[in-house]
Order: sequence, then C-alpha cells, then structure tokens
Amino acid sequence: MNINGQHHRAVMWNVAHRCPRWINQRELPFNIQWRESDDPEVVALAIESMEVRGAPSIGAFAALGLALAWRKGEDAFHQYWLPRFRRTRPTAVNLFHACDNMEQAARNHEDMVAVAMAYADAEVQRNQAMGEHLAPRLAVGERRILTHCNAGWLAAVDWGTALSGIYQLQRQGETPKVWVDETRPRLQGARLTAWELLQEGVDCRLQADVAAAWMMACGQVDAIVTGADRIAANGDTANKIGTYALALAAKAHGIPFYIAAPRSTMDAHCPDGRSIPIEQRDEQEVTHAQGLDALGATHTLRIASLGVAANNPAFDVTPYDYITAIVCEDGEWLPER
Amino acid sequence: MNINGQHHRAVMWNVAHRCPRWINQRELPFNIQWRESDDPEVVALAIESMEVRGAPSIGAFAALGLALAWRKGEDAFHQYWLPRFRRTRPTAVNLFHACDNMEQAARNHEDMVAVAMAYADAEVQRNQAMGEHLAPRLAVGERRILTHCNAGWLAAVDWGTALSGIYQLQRQGETPKVWVDETRPRLQGARLTAWELLQEGVDCRLQADVAAAWMMACGQVDAIVTGADRIAANGDTANKIGTYALALAAKAHGIPFYIAAPRSTMDAHCPDGRSIPIEQRDEQEVTHAQGLDALGATHTLRIASLGVAANNPAFDVTPYDYITAIVCEDGEWLPER
Repeated sequence: MNINGQHHRAVMWNVAHRCPRWINQRELPFNIQWRESDDPEVVALAIESMEVRGAPSIGAFAALGLALAWRKGEDAFHQYWLPRFRRTRPTAVNLFHACDNMEQAARNHEDMVAVAMAYADAEVQRNQAMGEHLAPRLAVGERRILTHCNAGWLAAVDWGTALSGIYQLQRQGETPKVWVDETRPRLQGARLTAWELLQEGVDCRLQADVAAAWMMACGQVDAIVTGADRIAANGDTANKIGTYALALAAKAHGIPFYIAAPRSTMDAHCPDGRSIPIEQRDEQEVTHAQGLDALGATHTLRIASLGVAANNPAFDVTPYDYITAIVCEDGEWLPER
Repeated sequence: MNINGQHHRAVMWNVAHRCPRWINQRELPFNIQWRESDDPEVVALAIESMEVRGAPSIGAFAALGLALAWRKGEDAFHQYWLPRFRRTRPTAVNLFHACDNMEQAARNHEDMVAVAMAYADAEVQRNQAMGEHLAPRLAVGERRILTHCNAGWLAAVDWGTALSGIYQLQRQGETPKVWVDETRPRLQGARLTAWELLQEGVDCRLQADVAAAWMMACGQVDAIVTGADRIAANGDTANKIGTYALALAAKAHGIPFYIAAPRSTMDAHCPDGRSIPIEQRDEQEVTHAQGLDALGATHTLRIASLGVAANNPAFDVTPYDYITAIVCEDGEWLPER
C-alpha cells in the first residue's frame, strides 16, 4: 500500500543488495525507517523486538531471513538457523509454516531466495483475495467498522488481512468509517493502523480500547474485524490481547464479528484454543510508553507508578462460538466440527 | 490513608491558612505536590483540569471551594459561584449534591467553612462504613480482586469507595491480590491506584485494560469492584469508560461485579442510564501521554499517529442487570423497581 502516495511492502527482498529490506515498525509512525541486513541474526532480532510484526509479515520475513541463512551452509542452516528462527515468537503459527516451507526447500536444494520471494508474493495474493471476500460482509449499516491492533499491510506484507477488506470497501466508493482501537500496551492501533488508514485516505477515529463496548452499546458500530495470530482446528482464534473482550461485547450487542486470516494462520495441530501458547511480554510494555516530543524527537517515558509489577499477556483466545465468520483467501473458512 | 507512612486526605480545609488544601493528582505518582489557594476560581479550575478527581473528592472539594466563594458576598455566591462550580464537570452527581448542600447552608447563613468541613468528614465516615460492608463480599476464592480506574482515597477524600473494601480486607490479614486496570486514556489505575496500593503494602499487578476479560477467562479473577460517578434511580451506573466492558465480561464468566458508592452518588432525578450525561473529553487525552523520563523529569509525548482524530467518552453506563450488588455506607443499596 501507499506511503505518501508511493507503493511499498512491509518486508521484501532487495534484489540489487541481495538481502531483506523492511520498514522498522517500532519507529512508526514518527520515523519512516527502512532497514536492510545481510546478517540473518539481525533479521531474527528484528522479529523478536517487533521491528517486523503481524503474523503474515513475520512468516514472510522469516522466509527471507532463512534465505540469507542458507548462505551459512547446509549444516548451520538446519542445526542452528531453523531453530533460531522458530524460537523468535511463540504464538503466530505463520512463522512455523514459513520455517517448514524453507526447511522443505532446503532439503530439495531449491533456489532459497526464489522460494522466499514466492512465499511473500503468495501472501500478498492471498490478502487481496481475502479483502474481496471480506468487503461485502463489511458493507452493512453505515459502514462503521471497528478494528483492533494492526491487521493491515504492515502486518501482512501488503494489503493486510482485516484492513484489506476495508481498503477494498474504500476503493469501491463505500467510504467506511473506521473506529481504531489504540491497542494497549504497544499501541499498534494508534501508531500503525491510524497511520495506514490516513495514508490511504480512510476516515477513522482513534479511541481507547475500553471505549469499544460503549460505542457498541450506543449503536455506533456496524461490524468488527480483526486479524489472527493462530487459529486452532476448531476455529478458536488467538489474536492480540483485547480481541476476546471485543468478541464478548459484539455477541452481547448482536454485532457481526469477523476474523480475517490466510490459511497459513490455521494450525491443524492445535485442536482448540487451550493448546495455543500465549506469549507473556516484558512488563516495560505496560509501564512505559514511547512517543514524540514537541521538538520532534522520540522518547520513552515511564507512565506507571514506580515499583509496580505488571501482567502482560500479549494475546488472548476467542472461542469460535463468538466469531460470526473466519474469512480467508478462499472465502469463509469452516472448522472441523 | 498513608503517603510514606504518614496519614493524609486528598482534599481538606487548612485551618491555619483558612483555605482548601489538595494533592495535585495530575502530578501523581511522580511528584507529590500539595496545593493551596484562597481563590475559588483556582479551586474550580482544579476540578476542571482534574487536579482533583473522583466523584466523592470532587463533591467535598467543591464544598470547600464554595466556602471560600462565600467571602465574595452573598449575591456573587448565588449568581456567579454556584453556577461556576456546577459547570465544572457534568457526570459526577456528588458535585451537584455538594453544591445544593452549600446553597442551602448559604440560605440559612450557616458557618460555611464548618458546613464544608463537616461535608468532607461525613464522606470519610461513609467510606469507612462502605469498606466494612464490602470486605466480606470480597473475601472470596483466592482474594484476587480486579479494579478499574481509581476509587481509592484520592478519589474519595480518604479510604476510598471500591478500595476501601480492599484496605479493610488487607487490615483483616486477608492479603488481597489486586489486578489494577491501567485505565486508559488518563491512566488513573497505573498512576493513582497502583501508587495508593503500594503505599499501603497491598499486593498488586498492573495490566492493560483489555487483559481483564482474558484474566477472567483464565480463572484468575475472584471478584471485581469499581466506584461510580452517578447511579440512576433504577441502578444503572455511570463510571469510568471501560466499566461496562468489564461488567459484560464478568457476567459472561459468572464473576461477582460490585459497585461501591456513597448515597451521594445516587441520583433520584435520573430514572435510568439513558438520562445520565456522558462527558466527552479532549482528544489529547487519547493521542498524548504523560510520564517520567530517565532523569526524573515529567514530559508529555504524542503517542498516536499525527493527524488522527480521537473519540474520548470519559464514562460509560452499566445496566443494573450486570451488577451483582451496589454497596453504599448502609450496606447493599437497592434501586426502586
């Protein structure tokens, strides 16, 4: 999608420099910082530190990183780099899917760069198809769509998952109005989704996450759509912490609640939500916040009382019963029942 | 309650200086700043800017401010100062209750300072009684109590409303473990409740507001208690934005959800929640955050993407059906049905 009117992808292979290129999402929206490295360790660290985040982007980026790691030799690739990348984040299954894919390609001695680039390209195709399936479902009421976290092109190489439907709706002239949950603690909504939507000219309003249920009670929300980090075989869905609270409120108010995710997010090995591991992240994400001062410099401030301990589960699990439909690249995805 | 082991009240009359004294809650927890003024306009501004916040503290503080305003003469008091104070905040009914009380005292030419001090004292007595009624209800399971916003002594002159029950539990040796919702956008949980609880030695964990529903799903919450800003005749309760989402989740998980509030919060003139006005506050509360840098100085940073508009309802309304019990100074309060 666009930054200042120019097309970009969140992660890609820079053919000229023979290495991955990515936008550092930690610096957004205040600095547009593109990074490149020919060191697979830098790529792995960029996943861990969330310079690159969002399940589909993580998967594609890990594939590009493993294409780099292939240069370290076949033994190092299998014994060190595959486990290294698999350890970077525990919840998003796309990561493991991409690693499995690259492992298979390595066993077959395929062109690893071509395989990784094809993996990223396929992700983009899937997102566009997903948006086309999603848009008619979002074209309800006054098109007031609520979303949580960032399931946009930053999270998904290009187009996005949940936001792909909103971008399609916008291009069809439906002028959606988007309620953007700020998404504490890391504020992906305030920092990334708001920025993405403004860059595409989509009408949006930012709000504290806890305002969502109240906006539903006030009749101000026509549909809700989020992405997913992992979907169990029975349809239970792990996504950013706060998704479950939204789904509870949507059910109470009879508002359709959609999950948008490619098939690479479905994990057939997870029978249900209880078997999805939930990442606990650093307490500092809750006790500190990063932002821009009046002079345009970025700082980190402590926002919580000194000495307080914090609980920081990064994801939650929404039971399938609370989900109106899971939309993937082929249309509605139905769990094994 | 205590700051560094010494007893304080959030608002009081300084007898020696013949004026109100208050702790500037905007500066907490990083600076402990006590303020005094003999200018009623400064008191009114301190309510508007939330230097003093929390429905019972606002009521007592307005009474102290009107005791000052009485010196401006009887005409000015009735024609200018009473309307001035009534305009400071729209949602908390205690404010109007205190203003009515001071208006009556003025009509009777009572000792206005004595009336205001008695009003604040009575608030403290009520809070202590409320805590005694609340504590046995919170002594359930493993005493893991979740609270939202700040319904502690800062909000309620002394003891607090919701936190009064937790402080009583702690003094009874029950060692509650408190989940503190950070309470976006103004972070009263992270800044005030966490600070209050740590000062009293209560075990607590801070979390993003949206983690609450997930902690309930994980079986980690035994009871929930919050304060209230206004309670309609039918029991519908206005409180900090986010309370409604908590109540929805509590109901879904069968977890008791208590409101703690003095009778001065009940508004017999409001038949139900729809007639409670909901304050919309400044967008900057959502787009900016205040905190402490590594050198110990406080700053305000922009945390949201530039140019994004924000929706900032300060309160929401929880229907009485979602409330297990409303506990006041006399025990359970029952609405007219």
